[in-house]
Amino acid sequence: MVEYIGIQGIQRILGQLGPAPFMEGLAAEIETDYRRWGEFDKSPRHAIYSPEGVIELMPTSDGHLYSFKYVNGHPKNTARGLLTVTAFGVLADVQTGYPLLLSELTVTTALRTAAMSALAARWMARTDSRVMALIGNGAQSEFQAIAFHHMLGVREFRLYDVDGRATEKLARNLHALGEKNLQVKLCGSVADAVEGADIVTTLTADKRNAVILTPEMISPGMHLNAVGGDCPGKTELHVDILRRADARVVVEYQPQSRVEGEIQQLPIDFPVTEFADVLRGAAPGRLSPAEVTIFDSVGFALADYSALRYLYTLQRQQNRSQSIDLIPHLDDAKNLFGLLTGTCASEAAAQGFDGILKNSSIELALT
Amino acid sequence: MVEYIGIQGIQRILGQLGPAPFMEGLAAEIETDYRRWGEFDKSPRHAIYSPEGVIELMPTSDGHLYSFKYVNGHPKNTARGLLTVTAFGVLADVQTGYPLLLSELTVTTALRTAAMSALAARWMARTDSRVMALIGNGAQSEFQAIAFHHMLGVREFRLYDVDGRATEKLARNLHALGEKNLQVKLCGSVADAVEGADIVTTLTADKRNAVILTPEMISPGMHLNAVGGDCPGKTELHVDILRRADARVVVEYQPQSRVEGEIQQLPIDFPVTEFADVLRGAAPGRLSPAEVTIFDSVGFALADYSALRYLYTLQRQQNRSQSIDLIPHLDDAKNLFGLLTGTCASEAAAQGFDGILKNSSIELALT
Repeated sequence: MVEYIGIQGIQRILGQLGPAPFMEGLAAEIETDYRRWGEFDKSPRHAIYSPEGVIELMPTSDGHLYSFKYVNGHPKNTARGLLTVTAFGVLADVQTGYPLLLSELTVTTALRTAAMSALAARWMARTDSRVMALIGNGAQSEFQAIAFHHMLGVREFRLYDVDGRATEKLARNLHALGEKNLQVKLCGSVADAVEGADIVTTLTADKRNAVILTPEMISPGMHLNAVGGDCPGKTELHVDILRRADARVVVEYQPQSRVEGEIQQLPIDFPVTEFADVLRGAAPGRLSPAEVTIFDSVGFALADYSALRYLYTLQRQQNRSQSIDLIPHLDDAKNLFGLLTGTCASEAAAQGFDGILKNSSIELALT
Repeated sequence: MVEYIGIQGIQRILGQLGPAPFMEGLAAEIETDYRRWGEFDKSPRHAIYSPEGVIELMPTSDGHLYSFKYVNGHPKNTARGLLTVTAFGVLADVQTGYPLLLSELTVTTALRTAAMSALAARWMARTDSRVMALIGNGAQSEFQAIAFHHMLGVREFRLYDVDGRATEKLARNLHALGEKNLQVKLCGSVADAVEGADIVTTLTADKRNAVILTPEMISPGMHLNAVGGDCPGKTELHVDILRRADARVVVEYQPQSRVEGEIQQLPIDFPVTEFADVLRGAAPGRLSPAEVTIFDSVGFALADYSALRYLYTLQRQQNRSQSIDLIPHLDDAKNLFGLLTGTCASEAAAQGFDGILKNSSIELALT
């Protein structure tokens, strides 16, 4: 049987642990994995583009565990009441090829993206950063705010979105956290939100070469956490920001970021640093308080690998395992056909039945 | 909610329809899709190799539906009581990026591989073919026998496997079908099995350049259905069989087969025909009764696309839908965070709970 974490499952895990400690723990896992960057089989994600959006597969492996994530990006979905990004993923055992865990990753992608952003900012933002502008107040924005509040000590969030209701929703959700040291300001424009900010997080969903940030908005010492530009033809920064003499650009995995990141606007020899080199001390995340640091984040498979392994551990620690009958269990591995004739059917049926029944009992007890 | 077909689900579908009609129907779907070959986004599968085996992702899309399959190949698994090949897959809506169906594909891969083999043989084997050698009597062998019996009219199966128990298992399962026109002969060697056969199906699992068939075993007019050689360094045919002057080699998708198929043993300009061209009449499957035709099959994503769409249709026709809470449903698509705070939690929990409860009621009624 394959372990399963659905929407209820992730709600249970986060209900028990809390989003902030979850992201702290996940950032530690991501950091551990990025420090052994060389052990991973890395490839740019496989993407199929359509006029409406993109569907991607993001596989990786360290030779012991294998993971992949399925993720879509469809900016027009919100107009139909659907999510822009949905995702799920699988963790598997390289030794046998058997899947171990199937998990929702829609909620988890928001958590892991925020954990990754905050982790990068720890190495790149000024340590006295206390004010963050949040441009784009959609599905992922609360997660970014919580991660930067808890992991970086950011106290003031300046919110802006072209959709005022999204900003109100974010402000409401942040107020509801009841954190004393967390202030929220609703701003009338991107420029208003960015002025005086130590960190600027861009989280917009438009699938085009947008110019969310322009050069005159940027002050020395700022850290830009550019999350929204993440596929060909979808960027958020004016190219002159990247070209600033005092700018330092860090990416996750060069071959993917050259195609998908903000740096797609620049020649392929434009100098960038891979985050793994920053973590390993091979390159600085920031050289001086006056530098403009830019984390040109597109999302890489390694963070999903870390997230899936983390979820698998948490699910088993919490002793609330739920499983699905995705893979057959056979007495005779060469008698797959027996599943259909009854030779193995009773056992398989009993197993599947027990699995589902057990789960619903668990859920019954919870509700 | 995402539709779900697990092991119980595929057992139910096949219990209702029967394996032979299922494969007949699936072959028709595959044929329809291969006839519109040009509409598909095609890429060689993504593979991560380890000393023990391979884990692959096989995506494709026609711009309306997207599918991918996860599949492993671990020849040493049977020694541990595990399956050599396990698989699952997802069908998704290109318009929204939302997954529609998550399905087991371990059983289904065996069915679709056999359906594809029989479909190719309809265009390549002599129409008077009545005798088939089955070399390799593992998990997929029954499916091949049933497909060739029902779709091609093969009456006599000559079985050989280095593992005598596998052959006995296959013979037992075929006898149990109770088909009057189906004869089974247990053979003492590959040469014994192949002699006098019209069709030779090789289905071995060894992950190496094996030589299962040698040139002197092959007679004019034979059709070789070479299924087992399907990744780099894993082949079944002596290269001189492919090089015969009277041989015609057909593959699914050249860029993948050059790396994974029997033709990996030959220069990249070795002439082959893509199956889609045979179906569309652009190239012959067989020119004369004396030709040796070789279907150098490695398994391509298109057949899995067809299988997933077919399963999705069958599941909905049978009105026995089962679903899992893999993707959140939100009242406000920008309020993903609301899932964690209770703003949307009650609805989501109720939805997930109902889904699981409904399923277990169905299964209760079935058991």
